[in-house]
Amino acid sequence: MEQTTTMICAALDDIRAHKPLIHNITNYVVMNFTANVLLSIGASPVMAHAEEEVEEMAGIASALVLNIGTLSPPWIRAMKSAGEVASQRGIPVVLDPVGAGATRLRTETATTLLKKTRPTVVRGNASEILSLGVGNGSTKGVDSTRSVHDAVSFAAELAREHGSIIAITGPTDYVTDGQRSCTISNGHPFLGMVTGTGCAATTVVAAFCSAAPDPFLGTVAGLTVFGIAGELAARKASRPGSYKIALIDALNEIDGTHIGSLARIEENNNSE
Amino acid sequence: MEQTTTMICAALDDIRAHKPLIHNITNYVVMNFTANVLLSIGASPVMAHAEEEVEEMAGIASALVLNIGTLSPPWIRAMKSAGEVASQRGIPVVLDPVGAGATRLRTETATTLLKKTRPTVVRGNASEILSLGVGNGSTKGVDSTRSVHDAVSFAAELAREHGSIIAITGPTDYVTDGQRSCTISNGHPFLGMVTGTGCAATTVVAAFCSAAPDPFLGTVAGLTVFGIAGELAARKASRPGSYKIALIDALNEIDGTHIGSLARIEENNNSE
Amino acid sequence: MEQTTTMICAALDDIRAHKPLIHNITNYVVMNFTANVLLSIGASPVMAHAEEEVEEMAGIASALVLNIGTLSPPWIRAMKSAGEVASQRGIPVVLDPVGAGATRLRTETATTLLKKTRPTVVRGNASEILSLGVGNGSTKGVDSTRSVHDAVSFAAELAREHGSIIAITGPTDYVTDGQRSCTISNGHPFLGMVTGTGCAATTVVAAFCSAAPDPFLGTVAGLTVFGIAGELAARKASRPGSYKIALIDALNEIDGTHIGSLARIEENNNSE
Repeated sequence: MEQTTTMICAALDDIRAHKPLIHNITNYVVMNFTANVLLSIGASPVMAHAEEEVEEMAGIASALVLNIGTLSPPWIRAMKSAGEVASQRGIPVVLDPVGAGATRLRTETATTLLKKTRPTVVRGNASEILSLGVGNGSTKGVDSTRSVHDAVSFAAELAREHGSIIAITGPTDYVTDGQRSCTISNGHPFLGMVTGTGCAATTVVAAFCSAAPDPFLGTVAGLTVFGIAGELAARKASRPGSYKIALIDALNEIDGTHIGSLARIEENNNSE
Repeated sequence: MEQTTTMICAALDDIRAHKPLIHNITNYVVMNFTANVLLSIGASPVMAHAEEEVEEMAGIASALVLNIGTLSPPWIRAMKSAGEVASQRGIPVVLDPVGAGATRLRTETATTLLKKTRPTVVRGNASEILSLGVGNGSTKGVDSTRSVHDAVSFAAELAREHGSIIAITGPTDYVTDGQRSCTISNGHPFLGMVTGTGCAATTVVAAFCSAAPDPFLGTVAGLTVFGIAGELAARKASRPGSYKIALIDALNEIDGTHIGSLARIEENNNSE
Repeated sequence: MEQTTTMICAALDDIRAHKPLIHNITNYVVMNFTANVLLSIGASPVMAHAEEEVEEMAGIASALVLNIGTLSPPWIRAMKSAGEVASQRGIPVVLDPVGAGATRLRTETATTLLKKTRPTVVRGNASEILSLGVGNGSTKGVDSTRSVHDAVSFAAELAREHGSIIAITGPTDYVTDGQRSCTISNGHPFLGMVTGTGCAATTVVAAFCSAAPDPFLGTVAGLTVFGIAGELAARKASRPGSYKIALIDALNEIDGTHIGSLARIEENNNSE
């Protein structure tokens, strides 16, 4: 684990030194919040969704986020085009299947993006991840209604089938590439009081994937840093409005000492 | 009035216990804010506007908000489709005619939604409500430029004609179903310093309509709770940035003691 | 300079007294933030982008903002229509060429709007302004990657060619109408930690152009007030989340004393 926290600190330093451009095709609800989250951690956000420009933008970015939170057909086409360019260039693509399972449009879009774009990482709650396989998740809006444990057995299979890292977040986060797996017990219940904290975790994962040795470690790093920031914020604020502000502040404040003392990562295979 | 505050407290408890899913087809400006407002009060927000999915989403929601703040033709079609499903299912539909009277597109869309969707509740400022009847409101952007009193005489007529609760908000809020009526003198002038507080009141009304005995009481409950939260926030902050944060916090903090001591509701008919 | 600060204070008083309606066709990321910025300074924001209503909205506004931060073809058409009405009415039009130079769509849209709409003011960072002439800026997202000094020599030429005020913002802001020019050394590095502060400066410039004696002075006033607010905010907060809130608060708090004591404006020609 000390090796892992050292890697996380190095990736964080790298983000702050190089300010990687993270291209987000994301939902209207969280655009401002996730842009501020990326700036706070040290990355450079850009939000661009027009079919006429997403290929160029993905062509200069260090990572791409595809978030299906407020879908419409032109945006789906833009996600596919950007995803193709990103794959060709070998930059990380992180898919957030927001609300998959709640409507056919979301489930099908998420499934199609998974198959066609072959994202580097998929991050969702248990319901959303489950809906990617069986299409029968009972997602209630964008909240998690199925336990992480229900989805864990399915995630490794999904990871192997699609060659993607699968991350299931909740009280405990679970990350698998189909071989290696890892649980992260950071975070705070208050994160559930603020809209878009899942989306924010996704974009932080994208930033870390652009800086870490490999995307499995990048995903672990991003979720750990985001979770610890959630804990630091809870020391400052306990109501949703001020907690959101404290969370953005914490992503800026977080350093190696916080990571070294607070990270709770458990590797389930002896793969490191 | 004690009966009314008891009802409000019960509805608030119900929202916090059951976290009703509130489906919002709303404007880009306030999406993040109103989602956070709903989470803070205890409800579950979902924002979805694609014609391909709004019927399914309205099909699992406990209430629907139609807010015309940043209109475009596909969104108008989505509002009609979602409104139809919501009506069939009997869940509350709350219409916010943002800026009706300012442009023909807004006035016509609001009027059409009122006629075709027959919303359970319409909440607007005096200008917006007046524009629904005569189409000659002189709305200045989304601000109120006509007094509540000008619109009150018109609201009861409008309520009877369309079978909707009409709520006119301003320094004093006025709620009528065409028979019963009620004024609420909660709220704070600082609410005018923050964009989207009207839209936030609308979505809080939707949450309370899903939990109260009937939509008239739900509207009264939502506006009272939102207004009291505005007063609690003014104890903490007096500038617009920090006031907005304090308002979100207050919606989370508000409890039966606040409601019992601060509610200023006057029933104009002896209907309870 | 005392003459200039007196003009700025008068324009600020005028905004607070008359609450000019500022019509924004702007990007999704900053809509909520810039609406709150306008309310905080004392103006009335309206966000409207539908081709069906932008002409009417521009027809009742005191200034128009065209911000290309999240473009798509229907919005480009709406910008052209609104710009035409605004020009005919003689109200100020302020163009923010967000990310021009990063993609062909942005560079071409910005260039076309510059030529066809002949905006009163264009505000961008050095990269964005440079891309308007030569089309070869190496914009990295929406961040500035070229120094203000590189662009200054180009800006006067651009101003004369198009009859627009050109404002280049960065550590030092530079404003020119092709004859007169001016540097403003207000602002704070923390502004770079928050998304949309450039867009916010643009919309504040629009508000001041509606109130100042001429648009050159309006641009100087808007950038000075925004920069001083950035400094005031830095006295209250040093992390991005709370700094954003402090910035909105400061725009509400700022008064003649702050302006008189903190403005750092240097006029480069003896034109006043």
